[in-house]
Amino acid sequence: MTLHNSIIRQSNPHLPFGDRQDGTYYGKNILSVKQFNRADLTFIFEVAHEMEEMVRRVGTFDLLKGKILTNLFYEPSTRTSSSFTAAMERLGGSVIPINDVRYSSVSKGESLPDTIRTLECYSDVIVIRHPETGSAALAAKYARKPIINAGDGTGEHPTQALLDLFTILEELGHVDGLTITMLGDLKYGRTVHSLARLLTLYNVRLNYVSPEILPMPAEVIEEVNAKNISQTVTTDLAKVLPETDVLYVTRVQKERFEDPEVYEKVKGSYVITPELMTRAKDDMIVMHPLPRVGEISMEFDSDPRAAYFRQMEYGLYVRMALLALVLGKA
Amino acid sequence: MTLHNSIIRQSNPHLPFGDRQDGTYYGKNILSVKQFNRADLTFIFEVAHEMEEMVRRVGTFDLLKGKILTNLFYEPSTRTSSSFTAAMERLGGSVIPINDVRYSSVSKGESLPDTIRTLECYSDVIVIRHPETGSAALAAKYARKPIINAGDGTGEHPTQALLDLFTILEELGHVDGLTITMLGDLKYGRTVHSLARLLTLYNVRLNYVSPEILPMPAEVIEEVNAKNISQTVTTDLAKVLPETDVLYVTRVQKERFEDPEVYEKVKGSYVITPELMTRAKDDMIVMHPLPRVGEISMEFDSDPRAAYFRQMEYGLYVRMALLALVLGKA
Amino acid sequence: MTLHNSIIRQSNPHLPFGDRQDGTYYGKNILSVKQFNRADLTFIFEVAHEMEEMVRRVGTFDLLKGKILTNLFYEPSTRTSSSFTAAMERLGGSVIPINDVRYSSVSKGESLPDTIRTLECYSDVIVIRHPETGSAALAAKYARKPIINAGDGTGEHPTQALLDLFTILEELGHVDGLTITMLGDLKYGRTVHSLARLLTLYNVRLNYVSPEILPMPAEVIEEVNAKNISQTVTTDLAKVLPETDVLYVTRVQKERFEDPEVYEKVKGSYVITPELMTRAKDDMIVMHPLPRVGEISMEFDSDPRAAYFRQMEYGLYVRMALLALVLGKA
Repeated sequence: MTLHNSIIRQSNPHLPFGDRQDGTYYGKNILSVKQFNRADLTFIFEVAHEMEEMVRRVGTFDLLKGKILTNLFYEPSTRTSSSFTAAMERLGGSVIPINDVRYSSVSKGESLPDTIRTLECYSDVIVIRHPETGSAALAAKYARKPIINAGDGTGEHPTQALLDLFTILEELGHVDGLTITMLGDLKYGRTVHSLARLLTLYNVRLNYVSPEILPMPAEVIEEVNAKNISQTVTTDLAKVLPETDVLYVTRVQKERFEDPEVYEKVKGSYVITPELMTRAKDDMIVMHPLPRVGEISMEFDSDPRAAYFRQMEYGLYVRMALLALVLGKA
Repeated sequence: MTLHNSIIRQSNPHLPFGDRQDGTYYGKNILSVKQFNRADLTFIFEVAHEMEEMVRRVGTFDLLKGKILTNLFYEPSTRTSSSFTAAMERLGGSVIPINDVRYSSVSKGESLPDTIRTLECYSDVIVIRHPETGSAALAAKYARKPIINAGDGTGEHPTQALLDLFTILEELGHVDGLTITMLGDLKYGRTVHSLARLLTLYNVRLNYVSPEILPMPAEVIEEVNAKNISQTVTTDLAKVLPETDVLYVTRVQKERFEDPEVYEKVKGSYVITPELMTRAKDDMIVMHPLPRVGEISMEFDSDPRAAYFRQMEYGLYVRMALLALVLGKA
Repeated sequence: MTLHNSIIRQSNPHLPFGDRQDGTYYGKNILSVKQFNRADLTFIFEVAHEMEEMVRRVGTFDLLKGKILTNLFYEPSTRTSSSFTAAMERLGGSVIPINDVRYSSVSKGESLPDTIRTLECYSDVIVIRHPETGSAALAAKYARKPIINAGDGTGEHPTQALLDLFTILEELGHVDGLTITMLGDLKYGRTVHSLARLLTLYNVRLNYVSPEILPMPAEVIEEVNAKNISQTVTTDLAKVLPETDVLYVTRVQKERFEDPEVYEKVKGSYVITPELMTRAKDDMIVMHPLPRVGEISMEFDSDPRAAYFRQMEYGLYVRMALLALVLGKA
């Protein structure tokens, strides 16, 4: 069950605390990459770029002073949780951290709608991470305050996809015309599914490089194909590496393989090393949603094309932009 | 053992940081509903009402800027913990969140007085939730900074009782003259015991509706009777519903019943539904301390008489008032 | 493996956000007591004393407004974590609390360098507590932002040693000429090892009082001896108590003893009681890193010589000083 139908741009007449309706994002939820068109992305990334410049210049500023974010994590994700906390604090706002939902009375039998309607009494915006697909949309259905989906099961993780795209834009200056190669476990990786969908808004070429048992799912390929995006499927990274502008690496988990020998063979061929990367362009970038566990050699970290830690920083700016937008302050 | 004798209004000559002694609440502990007289409540609710107006107008303000709250939770209570965090942050103060006491070195053999005397070095006020009755009073005995009891075992949870009463006042405009019906598990519910005691300061009529095995305890009934408050005990909600101004619903737990059939029968008769509520007044309210697990049908949520989510919000204002008062800033 | 060689004062050309290079501590790591000379300590304690005066006068001030601390605790330590949180908040800064690393994706296979390089994208300074010796130095090797060691295994806990020394200075006015007696488990106590090393920068006399099986390690004694500091080793507290200016008590753990009778005998002789302390000077002080579990009788707490809770407060000021110094704001 997906509940994305209920996402629809809200008007939120009850939004509190003297805010003015500054733009089309005020009071909205961020639930799915499907809710954005290209103009949306352009605007969000402009705001994110402004955030980047402000952070570099002054570190922190009081755009959201007095605003409170509830960071509601039903499963642990230190990386995403910390990123949202930092985003809110760099904007001068405060955070109610709820990381221990598994142990808490909130989780004991209480429905998600009830939890959300309680927490929105205390805060101005709620970021939710939940193991069940559709839970962010369910939360949004009942909330009067904006909901930001920080990952709901195998469903969506829209802020990750947005930060991935913003990284490409900031690093390479444009998206149209690029060849983007996705590498690793393309079957289970929520990240690459969302990114592929979002990239259909641009004029790009996509390569999918994975072990045969971990291919990009057919429904993603069909969806992308319907937008006339060129797609190439292969198991051989060497073949597409020279033409690649963006190499998006994901982790291949040993547990996916029945035969450990197949895993070992596959794993080796997909490890990014300085030597392998001599065959890639000089002005391309390597991305990874992190954490990595060996897919990219640490020896490659000092290469200017290694963009994966900068990617974390771009995530901060995108989340600052989203918080400011839905609170009507950007 | 109760330690309430040691609650007594302190003078706290050591209170720090240039605060002026603004009123009778400055430096005091909030340990038990027994410490309040009617004038106290009137004053606290006036301040809470001001907090409500300020939050609605500006969201957050800097009344407690520079003040630090330690939120010391020996057992998880996301709802109460978040409410105090939000209260402090809406007043411009900061929070040291300690939610993991069970796993921490603080709990390993260290006495509560030592923990308190350490944490008060860092903060200006301490909110404590502890599984043992009397622990908040024990903390207060050793602390130089104000202690607020956020629930100590089967003992007290005074801020819950205060927010319940404030909800009635804000929703109905007055307390005197009302008929208040308490429903559900009245035997084990700390909440209804404290509320009944607090209501003896007003001229009200109380109905207790519960399964026969979960009655209001005799000592509460005696205490209330000594104040000449009219009380009615029944198992039949229908009988008292039409005259009820405030219906205070609590959860009936299956584990309390030996015979599951008795439970099923009882449970059904105490579920608040839109149909049942056609027999109630138009200008009454339904309250619940939350979380609920079926005692109130979600279909009733949109009824204007459903006050339980607004109740959460009133809790924020009451806790803001208490923090401001004990820190000498209200 | 120790990694202290890599501590070395960094230049950090990449330090962010418009800070000026105000002094020699700007951008530095705090990893080990070995990095400080006496002039360093004098300066740090001057700043800590200023912090103390500011806190007493105004409670909180905005020296680090806009700065963000990541509090990265791989093992729980409520006391140290809360102290750093309070230090940052009293300076007007914000905190990203990461207390749940054991349960988080950060810990699942991700290397410490990767975790650090992610978190420094979000924050201006990182405090790290980690069970493995050398981990703070490893973090510093990869970080562009300052790292403060809040305890790494049996290695170092430099801010504890600094606050211990600052306590002596504030309580007694000077360090040179004092007789300092360390009592209890001197074999496994990280705290007394660091303090002994730091005291070699002053002209003091040291007494080590411990059960025979828990002596000060030979390498510490040799290191101290090389600095021409007088040291006395004994099992008899009574012998050295009358001459003691600072009695530093640590916990003796039952688990260290094979024979419970030996433990009981030893334990009794090392409990600080009002009666025992009649044999000590009037102007000496008793310290303890806390938590205590019986080594100091609660009856002694009201004695003016009992400095162990004040010691916690001095810790706040030292940590405020260190945060301000490494962020170039002191």
